[in-house]
Amino acid sequence: MNKKLMLFLILAMPVFIQVSSAQDKDSLAIRKMYAEALTNPVAYKNLEYLCTKIGGRLCGSVKAEEAVRYVRKVMQGMGLDSVFLQPVIVNHWERGDKESARIVSSTKGSLDLHVCALGTSIGTGDAGLAAEIVEVHNFNDLAVIGHPGIEGKIVFFNRPADGSRINTFEAYGGSVDQRARGAMQAARYGALAVIVRSATPAHDNFPHTGVQHYADSVQAIPAMAVSTNDADLLSSWLKDDPSLKLTMKMNCRKLPDVPSSNVIGEIRGSEHPEEVILVGGHLDSWDLGEGAHDDGCGMIQSVEVLRLYKAMGIKPKHTIRAVAFMDEEIAQEGGKAYADEAREKSEKHIAAIEADRGGDTPWGFSIDATNEQVDKIKSWKPYFKPYYLWFLEKGGSGVDIKDLKSPGVALIGLVTDPQRYFDYHHSANDIFTNVNMRELELGAAAMAELVYLIDNFGL
Amino acid sequence: MNKKLMLFLILAMPVFIQVSSAQDKDSLAIRKMYAEALTNPVAYKNLEYLCTKIGGRLCGSVKAEEAVRYVRKVMQGMGLDSVFLQPVIVNHWERGDKESARIVSSTKGSLDLHVCALGTSIGTGDAGLAAEIVEVHNFNDLAVIGHPGIEGKIVFFNRPADGSRINTFEAYGGSVDQRARGAMQAARYGALAVIVRSATPAHDNFPHTGVQHYADSVQAIPAMAVSTNDADLLSSWLKDDPSLKLTMKMNCRKLPDVPSSNVIGEIRGSEHPEEVILVGGHLDSWDLGEGAHDDGCGMIQSVEVLRLYKAMGIKPKHTIRAVAFMDEEIAQEGGKAYADEAREKSEKHIAAIEADRGGDTPWGFSIDATNEQVDKIKSWKPYFKPYYLWFLEKGGSGVDIKDLKSPGVALIGLVTDPQRYFDYHHSANDIFTNVNMRELELGAAAMAELVYLIDNFGL
Repeated sequence: MNKKLMLFLILAMPVFIQVSSAQDKDSLAIRKMYAEALTNPVAYKNLEYLCTKIGGRLCGSVKAEEAVRYVRKVMQGMGLDSVFLQPVIVNHWERGDKESARIVSSTKGSLDLHVCALGTSIGTGDAGLAAEIVEVHNFNDLAVIGHPGIEGKIVFFNRPADGSRINTFEAYGGSVDQRARGAMQAARYGALAVIVRSATPAHDNFPHTGVQHYADSVQAIPAMAVSTNDADLLSSWLKDDPSLKLTMKMNCRKLPDVPSSNVIGEIRGSEHPEEVILVGGHLDSWDLGEGAHDDGCGMIQSVEVLRLYKAMGIKPKHTIRAVAFMDEEIAQEGGKAYADEAREKSEKHIAAIEADRGGDTPWGFSIDATNEQVDKIKSWKPYFKPYYLWFLEKGGSGVDIKDLKSPGVALIGLVTDPQRYFDYHHSANDIFTNVNMRELELGAAAMAELVYLIDNFGL
Repeated sequence: MNKKLMLFLILAMPVFIQVSSAQDKDSLAIRKMYAEALTNPVAYKNLEYLCTKIGGRLCGSVKAEEAVRYVRKVMQGMGLDSVFLQPVIVNHWERGDKESARIVSSTKGSLDLHVCALGTSIGTGDAGLAAEIVEVHNFNDLAVIGHPGIEGKIVFFNRPADGSRINTFEAYGGSVDQRARGAMQAARYGALAVIVRSATPAHDNFPHTGVQHYADSVQAIPAMAVSTNDADLLSSWLKDDPSLKLTMKMNCRKLPDVPSSNVIGEIRGSEHPEEVILVGGHLDSWDLGEGAHDDGCGMIQSVEVLRLYKAMGIKPKHTIRAVAFMDEEIAQEGGKAYADEAREKSEKHIAAIEADRGGDTPWGFSIDATNEQVDKIKSWKPYFKPYYLWFLEKGGSGVDIKDLKSPGVALIGLVTDPQRYFDYHHSANDIFTNVNMRELELGAAAMAELVYLIDNFGL
């Protein structure tokens, strides 16, 4: 597109490129917050440090504690009224330094697969495992094949995430049961281990990890993920040679629980300090990548909301609190600890806004609240329009804040463009260089805008 | 974000994840087109070939003609009713193999800058140029400094694109006059050459090229672009040492005009074959990158619209025509030739849809048409909602189709997420790997959907 086109578009598209015509003081304050976020991209720099200097930070790990100290230090440098750690006891699972899988076929030779242990999986022992494979697409297939066909074998769950879905979260949601409960279900039929197609509609070589759960009533068996490309390959090899063998080795292991922390910073309200508007994301991440989109972005954006308030010199009427939650990925202990303490102290939350859908372009907000509250937020559409925040719908919010649910509290999720999220999610591809500066900062400003409107107009 | 959150979101967000409840035959046909585009990503594969096997394809070049043959071949393999070339005479400008600039300061040493020639610029001659620099921010600065301060010097245009704008097209539009008319304006004051800050809000080391224009009344002088990072550096060095020297060398040159072509394919309408719905993008691109977002995406998406029709076995009522326009980047000769022939033949166009704003997530359409036509397209919102196409506004369309403007013809531009576009635009960074498969295919499906609705419901 060239210059002539630009001039043509600019002349012809006033609606598209103008800011709201409502140039009241609130519109101007909001406009300035966006300008500050876009031209002084502190969130982007903080995310770069978190991702590239610290990196993946699974709860219970040394890296997670390093991240706790880093985020506390960032908040302490912002001139907030209060910065503190909130104790949380978390799981401690370690991936170890060995995870591999190879298929060996008498007709086709052998092939190493791109695999990773699923979170909380037991290891295979030093000797590893070797067995034939049973490919299935759902838990019902297990029942149909039954114990005799599964016992002593490795179950290969290979139902793809449905890439024809327009929203990738739906594609993911329709396939992730295999990862979360595949081992538990296959163990009921005597399976030796499971290997699970990565829960993503993307076609690539990244294995995607994520939490899986054992049941007390059945044997724990090793569980690994395989990249979608390799899942297709494995399935194709199996068609040629149903008796091919898979050897797998993992030395991941569970260790005793350890103490950790949520990191909390706040600006006290000038009129209603006892009433809290919360913004948050999670500080922990999976260990394979840098935890950039999941959820370095959302957590750092939440911290940026406070920075924007300080940079603009705005004194909020209500207390604005940013929470970096620990342990979203395994057991959500950070969210529970936060809600427990809030209940004990009878703290009043007006609203809680969580960002945990990746740092791509913000679209708007999904609102778990009364119809009246949803309508009130929708009535702010003219304030959101200049920032292309068009999605304002009743819906879910986020797991770290869901335990705050009680009458009157609006729980809200930042909704972002979902198309790329599962290219990164829980994989070695979730790295800082896959985050766009403008998109990240716009998400932070969108949260700051919503906080501003709630603070000034109530909810 | 983990599995629990997903299940929670899915249960709680029916509005977000459901397809339209209007499950009529049209909704179903549209749904199938999107599914085909997402699960059989032919556009993505075609774009990969165009970008990585052919690459940058400036009009007049051998590569541009190779691209003409490739796109014709792709269309010929699709079983269309007609595929043909439409003659266009185009400019032929060559970058040459030398473009460099170095600053030499008596106090700070020397530094090579990331630069490129601007399109249509003359070269410097083999010896190159060396002169002191005058930094300005707009054309008025030239008048203020005047002839004595500028004569014999190199003018450095350094007004940044305003990164605080929410829409990057506005940031670009506010700075691109320096690139397009900087040389012509500086020459009026006796400048030896110009070096222009790249027209992008991004901060990086890529110089961004683009067309610039000379005026018949003034001397043509060499014009180059410098990366935004180096523009900042140069400005900072100049503050320390106003008398530092810039040496520049370019052997770009203009050659005689050459014959080239638009590539056109069509499916004849079953009821109104004489009435055309056009989809198009431009086949030429700048030479520094691979012409991926600008405009490999839009052109290939237009071809994909026809493929989706064939794949679905839909016989359109009106003629659906895809046009790969030649020479959008320099003089828009392809668009003019197309409109001229349409007028000569008294062809009737119902609508023309152009895609030339990058291949990121589609947002909707900008419509240059009567209010009644705009309202009719807006009335299709329920059809667009499942695909998150929320932007349906009166506005500009695109330069390749603008000469088709006449009463009754709706001119429409595909609007896509603008945040990343100018990270790539006209630079070596505009490459295939910066295009996301889902986003590209969703854009193609969005165009196909609009074509389908116009074909079935009229406009």
